[in-house]
Amino acid sequence: MTVATDNDDLQSTLMIPGPIRLSTDVQNALGTPSISHTGTHFTKTFQSALLKLQKLFNVEEKEGYLPFVISSSGTMGWDLVGNNLLSSSDTDCNNNALVLSTGFFSESFYLCLQSYASNKSTVDKIVAPLGTSDFDEAELIAKLSSKKYRLVTITHVDTSTATLVDLNKVVKVIKDTSPSTFIVIDGVCSVGCEELDLGKLKGIDFVFTASQKAIGVAPGLCLGIISPRVVDFILNENKNNIRGYYTNLTKWLPVMQSFIKNQAKYFATPPVQLIHALNVSLSGILKQGVTKRVEEHKSKSDWFKDKIVNDLKLKLVSQPGYGAHGLTAIYVNNPAELLKKIGADGIVLAGGIHKDIKDQYIRVGHMGVSIENGDLEKVYEALKKNVIQ
Amino acid sequence: MTVATDNDDLQSTLMIPGPIRLSTDVQNALGTPSISHTGTHFTKTFQSALLKLQKLFNVEEKEGYLPFVISSSGTMGWDLVGNNLLSSSDTDCNNNALVLSTGFFSESFYLCLQSYASNKSTVDKIVAPLGTSDFDEAELIAKLSSKKYRLVTITHVDTSTATLVDLNKVVKVIKDTSPSTFIVIDGVCSVGCEELDLGKLKGIDFVFTASQKAIGVAPGLCLGIISPRVVDFILNENKNNIRGYYTNLTKWLPVMQSFIKNQAKYFATPPVQLIHALNVSLSGILKQGVTKRVEEHKSKSDWFKDKIVNDLKLKLVSQPGYGAHGLTAIYVNNPAELLKKIGADGIVLAGGIHKDIKDQYIRVGHMGVSIENGDLEKVYEALKKNVIQ
Repeated sequence: MTVATDNDDLQSTLMIPGPIRLSTDVQNALGTPSISHTGTHFTKTFQSALLKLQKLFNVEEKEGYLPFVISSSGTMGWDLVGNNLLSSSDTDCNNNALVLSTGFFSESFYLCLQSYASNKSTVDKIVAPLGTSDFDEAELIAKLSSKKYRLVTITHVDTSTATLVDLNKVVKVIKDTSPSTFIVIDGVCSVGCEELDLGKLKGIDFVFTASQKAIGVAPGLCLGIISPRVVDFILNENKNNIRGYYTNLTKWLPVMQSFIKNQAKYFATPPVQLIHALNVSLSGILKQGVTKRVEEHKSKSDWFKDKIVNDLKLKLVSQPGYGAHGLTAIYVNNPAELLKKIGADGIVLAGGIHKDIKDQYIRVGHMGVSIENGDLEKVYEALKKNVIQ
Repeated sequence: MTVATDNDDLQSTLMIPGPIRLSTDVQNALGTPSISHTGTHFTKTFQSALLKLQKLFNVEEKEGYLPFVISSSGTMGWDLVGNNLLSSSDTDCNNNALVLSTGFFSESFYLCLQSYASNKSTVDKIVAPLGTSDFDEAELIAKLSSKKYRLVTITHVDTSTATLVDLNKVVKVIKDTSPSTFIVIDGVCSVGCEELDLGKLKGIDFVFTASQKAIGVAPGLCLGIISPRVVDFILNENKNNIRGYYTNLTKWLPVMQSFIKNQAKYFATPPVQLIHALNVSLSGILKQGVTKRVEEHKSKSDWFKDKIVNDLKLKLVSQPGYGAHGLTAIYVNNPAELLKKIGADGIVLAGGIHKDIKDQYIRVGHMGVSIENGDLEKVYEALKKNVIQ
């Protein structure tokens, strides 16, 4: 998609929904010398980051959930799901996929999956009304009962609409109706700022996110966690249907299984600085406590949304009760003009990207460091000044 | 592949064939704040890096060679070739590939391509005798005349054997025998330290490399350049045969075409810090002059190889006249023991990875910063001390 080039300034306060601002610790970790990707130091760092990812998702080591960290943007998460879970032999009729769509990113996930489906299978979708995650339960049950679905995808937060899906509700319906179906979460704008507790909410099979969102690192990593039954499916049952190298998890999972045991293994050179920065960022997140971090994002988001709606009398793209907590999408008159004015005030916000309302709204990111030091208050003041002007 | 975990030290001198040491400028560029991936600053930086890549390969802007930079390891280069050039409809018999193999990495390229070939096509290979790039010319001509090859791949330097391919010779044979065949160069251990001048040596269609080799950046980028006829083939003739998103160049090439004109375009969030670091590193390389840089690598490599062979009386894996200039592979007794001793002297070298001779040799990287400040001399002294001991 062609986008407007924001007129930013290097001194500006970055308040887009990713890349987000880095903490000083993370930025310092990024600017370190290269080290051997098979040396003791890096091996220990990678192990540490992988173990922390298990903690982030609240799963015990012994439960066998396998975390992964791969050099790429978060977009590759869609390919990891398509290539490893949906690919099948041409005679297999069981590899259908169902996408629960809440915006631009769910739609892209849907299109990406289509290109991995065999002739005998379909990729279906259920689209929630704009700004909600109201998936009709009867329709969902009917669909899941109509044929065998290999997987269902849920975009936990769609970054295009700032809409949050209530996983507790949806996951239960899927599990009850079709327990063999893999439940896949696109957690790109949720992991690290929304509740995604795999220890508490059982049944989630695959989560991926990107490093530059609420994880608080620079862009360049796709990371996540995979349930034991999906690890087994990829490494055994489906291994011969998976194509290529880089998006092929039969290449990557043994690397993760090795590093998590503090043993180097080579498939492709890992981005040593980014993984070091990830490890530092995850340390900070776990030190703060995931529950507390999620609560703080919720509380700050609630404050901001309340001010926008009640004080500035603006309308949100997300309907009440469906708002994500790491970003806010706000309808405004002439978004391009407003972004320019706010930019002149030293704050970088993002434009709209949902095709139906692209030129009617702006997006404000409030993840990680940005909610800690008065940045969001500055955004509110700048919006107030420029909207009321 | 499971590898020995080197007992490195953060103060050690890193002399493996990638990741290589960073210059201070590049390291500083890496440790900078995140900025908007669609903002004026990043757009300008990305444009600048892309234009510099054209200069690195000595092609004029107007000739239409399209550079690309993607967040991933260099390994993804194989998938970019497989998915975009080799994929075809099942009835197409013209999508055969020929791999010219000089070691472990050529072999991996071969295996990766196989997984993209349709039922009607084959991936063939010609293997040069170990330590040489002696491809039998008659065999090459016979193969190329026997059926229609969509592409031939050449691993310019195979990092497993430190063997260099004489491109002038091979490219001419391919062009003369089968001019419609795309010539693909795996330049992972060559771009930035070996001569690869697309302005002088006409006929090369696709080159890729990784950021952590002679380009002098941290790991995390796959980058390269594509000829106009291959850009056209991907975006038009073959577009419907290319699967998925992340390794699908119909998604990426329009992004590169846009940024090179200083216009942001979104497909996946680019790694802003890594691209900033790339831009800084390319500035340094172009300032030095590519020809001069290649000569300096050659001269330092010749000096080192001469000392190893004539003073230390050790044997190289590469046969005389076939040695790469960014690394040296040396047969030694008990490599694991030697690497440990050298490690204790504060230098990190790499072990062998070619399956036939895996436990018989070591590898020394000498790319970029490492050849400028006496590091290779230190390696020689350490080898001398520990080999003669």
